[in-house]
Amino acid sequence: MTKEELFEIIIDNPDESAYKNAKKRFDSLAKPLDGFGDFETMICKIASGQHTDKPDISKKGLVIMIADNGVTSEGVSQTSSDVTLSVARLMGAGKSTVGVMTEDYPVDIIPIDIGINSDEIIPGVAGMKIKHGTGNISKEPAMTEEECLAAISAGMSVADMCSKRGIKLVATGEMGIGNTTTSTALFCALSGCGVEEATGRGAGLSDEGLKKKTGVIKRSLSLHKLNNIPVNALEKPYVFNALKSVGGLDIAGLAGLYTRCAQLGITIVIDGFISAVAALAASALNPNVKGYLLASHSGREKGSQMVLDMLGLIPVIHADMALGEGTGAVMLFPLLDMVMSVYNNGISFSDTDIVQYERFDI
Amino acid sequence: MTKEELFEIIIDNPDESAYKNAKKRFDSLAKPLDGFGDFETMICKIASGQHTDKPDISKKGLVIMIADNGVTSEGVSQTSSDVTLSVARLMGAGKSTVGVMTEDYPVDIIPIDIGINSDEIIPGVAGMKIKHGTGNISKEPAMTEEECLAAISAGMSVADMCSKRGIKLVATGEMGIGNTTTSTALFCALSGCGVEEATGRGAGLSDEGLKKKTGVIKRSLSLHKLNNIPVNALEKPYVFNALKSVGGLDIAGLAGLYTRCAQLGITIVIDGFISAVAALAASALNPNVKGYLLASHSGREKGSQMVLDMLGLIPVIHADMALGEGTGAVMLFPLLDMVMSVYNNGISFSDTDIVQYERFDI
Repeated sequence: MTKEELFEIIIDNPDESAYKNAKKRFDSLAKPLDGFGDFETMICKIASGQHTDKPDISKKGLVIMIADNGVTSEGVSQTSSDVTLSVARLMGAGKSTVGVMTEDYPVDIIPIDIGINSDEIIPGVAGMKIKHGTGNISKEPAMTEEECLAAISAGMSVADMCSKRGIKLVATGEMGIGNTTTSTALFCALSGCGVEEATGRGAGLSDEGLKKKTGVIKRSLSLHKLNNIPVNALEKPYVFNALKSVGGLDIAGLAGLYTRCAQLGITIVIDGFISAVAALAASALNPNVKGYLLASHSGREKGSQMVLDMLGLIPVIHADMALGEGTGAVMLFPLLDMVMSVYNNGISFSDTDIVQYERFDI
Repeated sequence: MTKEELFEIIIDNPDESAYKNAKKRFDSLAKPLDGFGDFETMICKIASGQHTDKPDISKKGLVIMIADNGVTSEGVSQTSSDVTLSVARLMGAGKSTVGVMTEDYPVDIIPIDIGINSDEIIPGVAGMKIKHGTGNISKEPAMTEEECLAAISAGMSVADMCSKRGIKLVATGEMGIGNTTTSTALFCALSGCGVEEATGRGAGLSDEGLKKKTGVIKRSLSLHKLNNIPVNALEKPYVFNALKSVGGLDIAGLAGLYTRCAQLGITIVIDGFISAVAALAASALNPNVKGYLLASHSGREKGSQMVLDMLGLIPVIHADMALGEGTGAVMLFPLLDMVMSVYNNGISFSDTDIVQYERFDI
């Protein structure tokens, strides 16, 4: 795929009539109008992506992009970067946090090595390595154009794989020490948000560590000339340049996953800050991606709520989580299952002696 | 049970060392510190209630108190009061919203007829009727002292039944046309909150309906001399008087359920506004109840967040729901299951080559 091909990808608009019909179905059920609140909106959105008022979310997947980040050499995280490999091994064995969390819940977990800094072949982790971690963004671009395009393509092929497996709802996750630094830099580059305002403590930085991280992000934005975002709508070449300069292989891979899932009509569930920034990048490259996104939770990482606001998404879980791996995104699944049960099998007013609620404009 | 016996019920403090040990267990797991955020606090609270750092939430129940409210004759709801009976029939058959919602999720649903305005014996609904709906609170007390005590006792006996069935976590739900009116009146009586500020649209009132409802609540508070709450801490006789005067049989039953569950060390999950107001009443009668409560969601009903704030509880689901029946409370269950899996079976740092995260005071 060339840059030009990337910029010209066509994504259909979601199906408005499927959305409306799904909402009508909710209104016909024997419960207060909008009783399930934002969950009704979510199911309607899934319906519109699938172009049907009988959406299917029976099979669900979680794609976890794993990559290392050269910027860790600046000391921006509490742990050393070899933790990425250690956690990837656990993930492959189904023993990382999200694996244990879902041991009694059916979800297809698909960990992808898109750039771990190791030659190890990790059982249970799909090998799609672009390179051994990114460059140190405070000194050089994270990726070349070719590497960035390859990471996006890799993500797109994972979406195709999900589709072939019959997965109808994809959660996104990531793992890579240092990736709150890269995602914060990319977020600032795409939003114009101030670095102090956007930078959080990742997996647990001290005050001193936070100061260092903020400085590293500022230097990176300045080096790559990303600290004065264009006043008008972002141009695609600018977005792509930001992604390759201060992003990560995980983020680029996720951007590709979002893009191709949207093309395929598969709704994607965003996890925390990092996967939200990847969605922001994908949406900046192709605005129609937004029609296929759901937010899950608003995590602890400082910029989480800001990115979701920019995407126009409402997270339903607010639990101050900061874990990664897609843990917040998979939590949305059982909740959607419950609402979907009612959507599919709930009693309609017409099957009862109850008069249907009337919708007022309030 | 006499009023005096109610006021003197003893509830043990939750076990602080079990709480601390549970938190230590979370910190030892190979994940960022506090990675599960508020969910970690919830599991620790359950542990402290059960006096063990190996809490058991395998068996869960949902108690739904169903009752009619005489105040519906004032026209405070969109639907007529016989909907209470219709929905109760659906509940008994497992076909109401919460029944369908949990058809693939194991939870023991226990609907209780504590005051439906009908002599019908409803299959699947436990008959514990105190009377055929309450009095019209804008003209008379909802209940006599004896009736209110009987409803509280009934709720306590349901807690005992849950305990005998091995249920370790109880969600609360309610059904009863008109019960956002009674619960709002009781909330104002216990909090001093202004009626306009606290009154919401229930299951969907028009502007005119909302105005009427606000007026009815004001008249009720004035009639029962509950519109000037004492400046100092609420006295138990005042709280009991408010409950019997403007509460409902469902609310009194839930208050009893909360109280006895707390005595038994069973943690109770609050649903929306009505069940939260019942928890507020129970906590005002016995402050130690608070140690055994979890919030689930912050619903659409206007006062929801205010009551939870007064109880010092943080809801983790924010989805603008307004359904009742305990639908928001049962949504917390699969989320707690997921976190509990990690608590029980997660990999510890000591089983990996990863260095444990350090806790900074931030």
